Amino acid sequence: MAPILLNCMGSDHKEYIEHTVHVKNPYLETMEEDILYHFSLGTKTHNLPEMFGDVKFVCVGGSTNRMKAFAQFIHGEMNLPGSSEDLRDICEGTDRYCMYKAGTVLSISHGMGVPSISIMLHELIKLLHHAKCRDVVLFRLGTSGGVGLAPGTVVVTEKAVDYSFRPQFEQVVLGKVITRSTELDEGVCQELLQCSSELRNLPAVIGNTMCTHDFYEGQGRLDGALCTFSHEEKLEYLQKAYEAGVRNIEMESTVFAAMCRVCGIKAAVVCVTLLDRFKGDQITTPHDVLLEYQQRPQVLVAHFIKKRLGIPV
Amino acid sequence: MAPILLNCMGSDHKEYIEHTVHVKNPYLETMEEDILYHFSLGTKTHNLPEMFGDVKFVCVGGSTNRMKAFAQFIHGEMNLPGSSEDLRDICEGTDRYCMYKAGTVLSISHGMGVPSISIMLHELIKLLHHAKCRDVVLFRLGTSGGVGLAPGTVVVTEKAVDYSFRPQFEQVVLGKVITRSTELDEGVCQELLQCSSELRNLPAVIGNTMCTHDFYEGQGRLDGALCTFSHEEKLEYLQKAYEAGVRNIEMESTVFAAMCRVCGIKAAVVCVTLLDRFKGDQITTPHDVLLEYQQRPQVLVAHFIKKRLGIPV
Repeated sequence: MAPILLNCMGSDHKEYIEHTVHVKNPYLETMEEDILYHFSLGTKTHNLPEMFGDVKFVCVGGSTNRMKAFAQFIHGEMNLPGSSEDLRDICEGTDRYCMYKAGTVLSISHGMGVPSISIMLHELIKLLHHAKCRDVVLFRLGTSGGVGLAPGTVVVTEKAVDYSFRPQFEQVVLGKVITRSTELDEGVCQELLQCSSELRNLPAVIGNTMCTHDFYEGQGRLDGALCTFSHEEKLEYLQKAYEAGVRNIEMESTVFAAMCRVCGIKAAVVCVTLLDRFKGDQITTPHDVLLEYQQRPQVLVAHFIKKRLGIPV
Repeated sequence: MAPILLNCMGSDHKEYIEHTVHVKNPYLETMEEDILYHFSLGTKTHNLPEMFGDVKFVCVGGSTNRMKAFAQFIHGEMNLPGSSEDLRDICEGTDRYCMYKAGTVLSISHGMGVPSISIMLHELIKLLHHAKCRDVVLFRLGTSGGVGLAPGTVVVTEKAVDYSFRPQFEQVVLGKVITRSTELDEGVCQELLQCSSELRNLPAVIGNTMCTHDFYEGQGRLDGALCTFSHEEKLEYLQKAYEAGVRNIEMESTVFAAMCRVCGIKAAVVCVTLLDRFKGDQITTPHDVLLEYQQRPQVLVAHFIKKRLGIPV
């Protein structure tokens, strides 16, 4: 289908609008240039529609090494021409994030925590907008602490919840706190669960994901530099989380869900659990086992993408 | 002075305690092993006192490249033996953070935002504790948006404040919000200002630093993917910040100040401003000028360290 310009009329226009990425900022169109500073890209220095116009899937995760590995993995899975070893970091002008493109799949790192992924998402959403991308699905592939699950289980997030188990994200705008919904796309979530059932060695569940702003006190760990609570109080908090449907804990899902929702992007959070927090705090699993666990979200999402693209799985 | 054991008695003991890094966690001493997961270091796998026992200055900053460059720079400034090119990333087993040691100076990256630096600080404070370090001074060397200052000005933080200009940090512990003070060490702050006056091309001021949890809406930028306020409302917010003594805006200072204070570590925040937020949002300064700006906090802190160590400046 040929691209339809934003200013055309009729029902095609409505359909176009429905499937594009919505930036919600009237000022953007008035800017002569938009510098995506933390990507080291810009609308004047780079031809964003040419570079990114065909992107249909964006996969993001905390670690640079892991997102490079994912780009190489999906390159092989999609039988793309050329060597996956030749994939180049599109953001090589900065060390804030890395970005790789394999066919219609973009793989980007986002660092750790809500503020870090939030900067990346602002610039990614603007990038997709400038590039006139359509029908994009966005995945966060991550690691997490499990709540009552065997380590290695993949959690596909139903609702991203805050420290009080509420499905909301609090955003400060000019000194005032506003609240945004963190609902994710139900269709993509169910499709991912179906994919997991088609794969061997990929235990997966749908559950709520709690997003915290720190790894130690906020998640009830007893092994940080600071700890003012008891083992019993920790277990009580985790039990309350479990009863609220929380199956894993990580540090980015609420803002990811909230921003994708506001901007009309279908999105899913797919995190593997590295340990069961009811049983401990430290990650003592051997390195090679952790590596295999960390590949599971990648294998699951690669399967989803291949099915969507009609590539034999 | 020979190391004094923690269980010794008398006034020496009191003095020792006063100068050590205080972890505030009774569980730590009961752990057989402490894995500093995001550093890829541990008490069983690494001899932390031997590796880090002599550390007196820790410099942290967001970017991995910049903190590697700082380690190489301070290596040269301190006339240390060997080539600065040979400095090795101590955290090479992970890509979460990087860490370099040059003499008694440790240089570590912390990524962007409060959650990211908070994980690093928990593990750094435990590392300094396990290594039995004494009299450590901790610096955050960063970049920031200026509020009513010429770009390139270095701000030495008096108080780290939140989005409402309050000198406090809100920490969630097991689902409850607690508040911690964000006061920084006044002596180190004044000493840094004195150092700046001894250097050419190093404009510096003491001021409050506002710490936000995002780069766009929270800082009143008009160029994010989302923007619901007007240019006038933005300026009004920045004006209020200015009147509250805020001279720059970044994303890590409150938790940095709060954790250092609780753990008895003298700390300072030294950030250069890349633009004046009254005049714009985008960072359009040429790359080479930005690089020179980014070196200013490094030059200032290196001068401080050399003076403290009695190295001719």
